[in-house]
Amino acid sequence: MSDARPRRIAALVECLGSAHLDGLLLTSLSNIRYLTGFSGSNALLVVTPRDVTLITDFRYQTQVADEVGNIARVVVEPASLWTGLWRHLAALPNMQVVGFETSHIQHRDFQRLVEAGARWQWRPTADLVELLRERKDAGEIDRIRDAAGVATRALERTVAEIRVGLTELQVAGVLEKALRDEGSEGFPFPSIVASGPRSALPHARSSTREIEPGDFLLMDFGAEVGGYCSDVTRTVVVGRADDEHREVYEVVKVANERAAKGVRAGMSGRDADAIARQYIDRAGYGELFGHSLGHGIGLEVHESPRLAKTSEAMLAEGAVVTIEPGVYRPGWGGVRIEDDVVLDANGSQLLTHFPRELIELG
Amino acid sequence: MSDARPRRIAALVECLGSAHLDGLLLTSLSNIRYLTGFSGSNALLVVTPRDVTLITDFRYQTQVADEVGNIARVVVEPASLWTGLWRHLAALPNMQVVGFETSHIQHRDFQRLVEAGARWQWRPTADLVELLRERKDAGEIDRIRDAAGVATRALERTVAEIRVGLTELQVAGVLEKALRDEGSEGFPFPSIVASGPRSALPHARSSTREIEPGDFLLMDFGAEVGGYCSDVTRTVVVGRADDEHREVYEVVKVANERAAKGVRAGMSGRDADAIARQYIDRAGYGELFGHSLGHGIGLEVHESPRLAKTSEAMLAEGAVVTIEPGVYRPGWGGVRIEDDVVLDANGSQLLTHFPRELIELG
Repeated sequence: MSDARPRRIAALVECLGSAHLDGLLLTSLSNIRYLTGFSGSNALLVVTPRDVTLITDFRYQTQVADEVGNIARVVVEPASLWTGLWRHLAALPNMQVVGFETSHIQHRDFQRLVEAGARWQWRPTADLVELLRERKDAGEIDRIRDAAGVATRALERTVAEIRVGLTELQVAGVLEKALRDEGSEGFPFPSIVASGPRSALPHARSSTREIEPGDFLLMDFGAEVGGYCSDVTRTVVVGRADDEHREVYEVVKVANERAAKGVRAGMSGRDADAIARQYIDRAGYGELFGHSLGHGIGLEVHESPRLAKTSEAMLAEGAVVTIEPGVYRPGWGGVRIEDDVVLDANGSQLLTHFPRELIELG
Repeated sequence: MSDARPRRIAALVECLGSAHLDGLLLTSLSNIRYLTGFSGSNALLVVTPRDVTLITDFRYQTQVADEVGNIARVVVEPASLWTGLWRHLAALPNMQVVGFETSHIQHRDFQRLVEAGARWQWRPTADLVELLRERKDAGEIDRIRDAAGVATRALERTVAEIRVGLTELQVAGVLEKALRDEGSEGFPFPSIVASGPRSALPHARSSTREIEPGDFLLMDFGAEVGGYCSDVTRTVVVGRADDEHREVYEVVKVANERAAKGVRAGMSGRDADAIARQYIDRAGYGELFGHSLGHGIGLEVHESPRLAKTSEAMLAEGAVVTIEPGVYRPGWGGVRIEDDVVLDANGSQLLTHFPRELIELG
């Protein structure tokens, strides 16, 4: 596979030109990984039209050489990365106006820029790399597809083991072990396993609650492969579903199907959200769908774009997004069904292949 | 158990007085949890001498009432927390100089303070709550002890299943499932399972490498109970240990024992670090112990204090810290042995009860 990094860096350098910046300091580790391949937890990156330099610490000496190769000059700092930064910037010719990432630098570190780095003019920038990341290339889509496969296979294995009396935490344990056995490098976010009334909390964490007969069991989790994330939710009934279970489930299932089928590049995030929202509204459950339809996934599990009522921006070709409508009735329970799709101008392609039909267990 | 929160808030209000602040805006979720009990992922907190107000979003409506009770006024914002913040501040009498947490606010949000919040004078503060958190009370120590028990029982179960041919990721899966089965609410950090030469990388992530006979297998992981973390490392030999394994292991084991026994409140972080470092130096392995001895644990897995060469600060009574010396020989392998201890003026008490003796498996 061809190396995508030179193209990414060239695209960023073009943005710098338009923004009248002599260079850009990157502090987002995801953005740094996207541009250079470095996956460590401590780094600064400086990009100028003629130079790309990554500064990290001694713990990553071996790893950084393997991952970064010739795409960037590497400086390994014994003490503080900031010391290395000032020395590096001072050695670069014609550096006056330097951008920094306003959403990825703490105020404390911003103070370093304006104090120790007072000889440069610092300009806040937002989303320069994030917008490049929105449009995934074939290699990125392959990795997200792999992460989606890991997640759905792990879910198949987990569903076979769910039974009344297990706690939510025990189910999380089964699921997370299956994710590891299938090769997940990590957990993109804390797995949500929520049963019975707790399934009505969109941001539940897994608890010691024991599963009871007739419970909804909602599982929202992801896998990571090659640094890229998947994000999947399924809701099952443990025992027999009653009419109310079936009715709510069917509304969410059809909303998911319609949105996954109808979303495409060129549409606004708001219009994508509306596909599911209008269907749920008309079914009479609009008040119980309190969150937005979805979000981009990639190196991070929440990234651009947003599929939400307030999002006017046009969805890019190559964006990978979640489709996750839900209906939550407080005190009773909730259903969310979430898939991952990649967008093109004609429509979308499903990356998560797990049946949407209602599953009754045991 | 008595409610510790009023005492914590009173202590913080005292700090505000000394710092000549009319109030403090808190953006660190761990600090907010410490003061109010709220465990959600989106909140702002304003503390003044006469008022404590927490602002969160609609997703946490139910949870915030349960967790916060009467300790704070709660505002549930339908849209942006910042909108709620301006309204709240404007309603407070005599608010002129307001502190903010320089280490826990992105530059983007700092810009909101000086733009939308221009009618107040904003002052950066550092570590006001972190320093209170350093000194754990009995309830906090109980929870860390519980989290330590979960971790060591999970390790016992895992050790019984380790064998040649399993991948590091598979061992991570076994370990994480055992943590869940023992009741861990989450994973405080990504588990490190590193085998053979990879055990020499202090910041390895778990990989698809298969365990080979004669490998060191290093496992560094934690549990979470009631929001509080434990952090444990053990290194075993899969198969038979040779003389080199034994020699390196023994050095690290004795360094751990001496430091765990010798550390106490009132000592500087540097002097604590020196107990292990001098022993390892004299054994001839000083160059191969490249990181510091330990760090505080609590609501976060890395918090104050630091046990490091550069840390002059005195260790507080009630601090809970890790003791984690290591020796890493690049290309060959490494050993780290990590325990958690709570400090008092006379010494320390071990919270992680797992044998330090070299274990040979299979």
